Amino acid sequence: MASIRRASSRLRPLIHFSTIRPITTTTKPSANAATAQVVEQMGTDQPFFPNEPFGPTIQTAIPGPKSTKAIEDLDKIFDTRSLNIIANYQNSFGNYIADLDGNVLLDVYAQIASIPVGYCNPALLASATSPEMASAMINRPALGNFPQHDWADILRSGVLRVAPKGLDQVFTAMAGSDANEVAYKAAFMWKRRQERGGPDVEFTADEISSAMNNQSPGSPQMSILSFRSSFHGRLFGSLSTTRSKPIHKLDIPAFDWPQASFPHLKYPLAEHASANAKEEARCLAETEDLIKNFHNTVAAVVVEPIQSEGGDNHASPAFFKGLREITRRHSVLLIVDEVQTGVGATGKFWAHEHWNSEDPPDMVTFSKKAQTAGYYYCNMDLRPNKPYRQFNTWMGDPAKTILFRAIIQEIERLDLVENTAQTGEYLYAGLERLAERYPGEIQNLRGRGQGTFLAWDSPRRDDFLKRAKGVGVNVGGSGERAVRLRPMLIFQKHHADIFLEATEKLISS
Amino acid sequence: MASIRRASSRLRPLIHFSTIRPITTTTKPSANAATAQVVEQMGTDQPFFPNEPFGPTIQTAIPGPKSTKAIEDLDKIFDTRSLNIIANYQNSFGNYIADLDGNVLLDVYAQIASIPVGYCNPALLASATSPEMASAMINRPALGNFPQHDWADILRSGVLRVAPKGLDQVFTAMAGSDANEVAYKAAFMWKRRQERGGPDVEFTADEISSAMNNQSPGSPQMSILSFRSSFHGRLFGSLSTTRSKPIHKLDIPAFDWPQASFPHLKYPLAEHASANAKEEARCLAETEDLIKNFHNTVAAVVVEPIQSEGGDNHASPAFFKGLREITRRHSVLLIVDEVQTGVGATGKFWAHEHWNSEDPPDMVTFSKKAQTAGYYYCNMDLRPNKPYRQFNTWMGDPAKTILFRAIIQEIERLDLVENTAQTGEYLYAGLERLAERYPGEIQNLRGRGQGTFLAWDSPRRDDFLKRAKGVGVNVGGSGERAVRLRPMLIFQKHHADIFLEATEKLISS
Repeated sequence: MASIRRASSRLRPLIHFSTIRPITTTTKPSANAATAQVVEQMGTDQPFFPNEPFGPTIQTAIPGPKSTKAIEDLDKIFDTRSLNIIANYQNSFGNYIADLDGNVLLDVYAQIASIPVGYCNPALLASATSPEMASAMINRPALGNFPQHDWADILRSGVLRVAPKGLDQVFTAMAGSDANEVAYKAAFMWKRRQERGGPDVEFTADEISSAMNNQSPGSPQMSILSFRSSFHGRLFGSLSTTRSKPIHKLDIPAFDWPQASFPHLKYPLAEHASANAKEEARCLAETEDLIKNFHNTVAAVVVEPIQSEGGDNHASPAFFKGLREITRRHSVLLIVDEVQTGVGATGKFWAHEHWNSEDPPDMVTFSKKAQTAGYYYCNMDLRPNKPYRQFNTWMGDPAKTILFRAIIQEIERLDLVENTAQTGEYLYAGLERLAERYPGEIQNLRGRGQGTFLAWDSPRRDDFLKRAKGVGVNVGGSGERAVRLRPMLIFQKHHADIFLEATEKLISS
Repeated sequence: MASIRRASSRLRPLIHFSTIRPITTTTKPSANAATAQVVEQMGTDQPFFPNEPFGPTIQTAIPGPKSTKAIEDLDKIFDTRSLNIIANYQNSFGNYIADLDGNVLLDVYAQIASIPVGYCNPALLASATSPEMASAMINRPALGNFPQHDWADILRSGVLRVAPKGLDQVFTAMAGSDANEVAYKAAFMWKRRQERGGPDVEFTADEISSAMNNQSPGSPQMSILSFRSSFHGRLFGSLSTTRSKPIHKLDIPAFDWPQASFPHLKYPLAEHASANAKEEARCLAETEDLIKNFHNTVAAVVVEPIQSEGGDNHASPAFFKGLREITRRHSVLLIVDEVQTGVGATGKFWAHEHWNSEDPPDMVTFSKKAQTAGYYYCNMDLRPNKPYRQFNTWMGDPAKTILFRAIIQEIERLDLVENTAQTGEYLYAGLERLAERYPGEIQNLRGRGQGTFLAWDSPRRDDFLKRAKGVGVNVGGSGERAVRLRPMLIFQKHHADIFLEATEKLISS
């Protein structure tokens, strides 16, 4: 821990913009002393960022008067019905988000699980203000045609440095939805190549003319299999694999693609081992049956290691290894969607590392905490047989890819994957104690051993989320009943203490 | 013009990064004197950026030895089969792109029409290194839930400041493909609302359950009508409306959506007025027939003001006004895809302004030169009846939206829309002279009055594009036969002279 202390104190001078300053400067002078005292009490839990606020500050109801005015104004030009907090990010720091009325909340939602290493992170600030970032911002290339001279280096020293085991290639994209869709496109092209008999078999005249008319065989009636309650994005192809909530899908045309059941596990896991194993076997059998018999040939199966929007639904490593085995057996690709689970939150860099599988997925998609997106692969047959088949103007963004590299460096510098593992264990234990005390309020607590990627079902979930702001916490839900925790990777035990105290306050009243 | 001169000389000190420097510093000392001489000859054509290179520099074959080595290295991790030039953007400036072997080319392709105001533009550099940009980069919000305090201001002072006439709302996105897809989603939700009888009619149980199964009525069999040879993107929904080339579509499942003929105009227009009018009437009749009779209800028609990938195909204002009239009559939305045509290149800020229509489109999509993306609209019925229907994690990107504002300011400061109009006229006249001299080489010259958005058909197009690099020009094609010009908005008459000279060199040999 000593090295971390030294490293973080080195960082302070990097926050030099007058408009970007840690909010501790606006909190009461005793804050630092109080922090020091707490640190001493907690022993090894040295704060990564000594100038982070000591705790939440609540000055007004949320939204307060200034926020209410700003929201009314924004609504004139931008739909605000899903607005949660109107934030001042320049006053936010570390795990704390600030609003316009002086309220400062502990943020365990983190922009829908997409802020990796804290607001106004000094190391990211250094990257964002570097000459190479400035060039990337103002000289954005069409990467497929005119990549920049250091593109290979940016990839190798960043996104590929953390490539999942067994995968060493990347196709870059913009966000989770299009990352999944380009992976699906690669899968369809690969599957048709298999059916054709290789990369050198030319397209037929019929394929060429029918494709231009959106008809088979050129535009084949093929499918991607996904799971009930899954979420893979909201564009037309990705939405066709999303099965989370009707509100995501209603009125939008969709492809006739199959869905298999995802295991409904019972908690605590140890008490239901046999029933859960049976449930997983049932879901695997259903998947295999669909692969064999669904009327539109399945090119790939897409799965989240933890269903992250659909209710924080988990399955065992055995389930996922079974899925890999089935997809191999039927020459179907396995795409693992790590858009929400990836980049450290589960106590591994990639959540699918928990499976301990020797046989890697064919593609792994990522976004959110990476601040960029894309898919990893290895098999060179997944490069289409001709150029311009997997192509678009920007094909990603060097600026965000440089930022991802800085995020990776910060994760390594502070050993943040280990931190989420340890803090997650601590947080889980605290929640387990609360669940014992308030069994009606904290049900089906899940995510043990998955870092801070924890969730439970609440009988009054929406009320819980809403009232949380009043006790200084910003927290989100998933599915119909789950409270989902998605803190940043810099969430530590002393933050967990604040969260646990707030949670008890909410569920005991 | 005097004000422009003063303004540009003010900018020089902004280029202060040691690694970002104008390439004039590496060209021969006589360059500035030569520039001054040329300026004098051309009278009012004062360079916007006095430190831009005087002209192209060719040192090696392209790719040269350093580039070849770098490409081989990049190919190990990133598919390079569509690679055109591996560039050094920090050595590129204004209209000139530099490679790794000391070659500097006049760039009239501009990253597939997406660089607006020149490489290493000093005003963009100032924006990219501002404190608000740094905060936007490192604190990227989930805009639908947690927008930043100044989001309304960023929109009003930027993207909405240039909103097409009649449209005053915006939904922000990431790139052209997803901008079109969210517009399509808005169209489907709007159309179903009309069919249902209003925003307050609740979804039926059948709709809710069928949507989760990708089946109608919840996932309706509805369509977006597009035109033959159009290009609207390469994700699954946008690709279903793209009809440019088989290579874009083969092996990818597509929706059963209709396509209408787009006018094939004959050139010169003045000589074929009657035949062209008849052709446009034929296409409009076909469109109306499809709207009335296609088996999957048409929710919207999407059209490019100029088909920009599919061969630079133009139609008259009368055609587009007819399309607006037909779509109004049948309660079908009109989406104008200005991803490639928008932001000043056609001598208007939006190409559809050339139509002089009193009745605006329902939605206008944008990306590329905006460096961000989204769709404009006005009708508040296009906001879905419930929150979270039109939603995703990031919903755009404040960093790129701030950059778009700087681009708009630069366009206004240098009066660049007027510049493309004037330079376009000059360039067109020069090409017309070449077409008269080499009628076999420059066929169907088109785009008169459309700024620098010009094209012609070439009997040896791919050869022309390839050899252009040897004479110092980077230029692209569209469709099967067209050479398309997509210079930046800072392309001036003296650049046109260089381009015309290079073109004559190529077609006369």
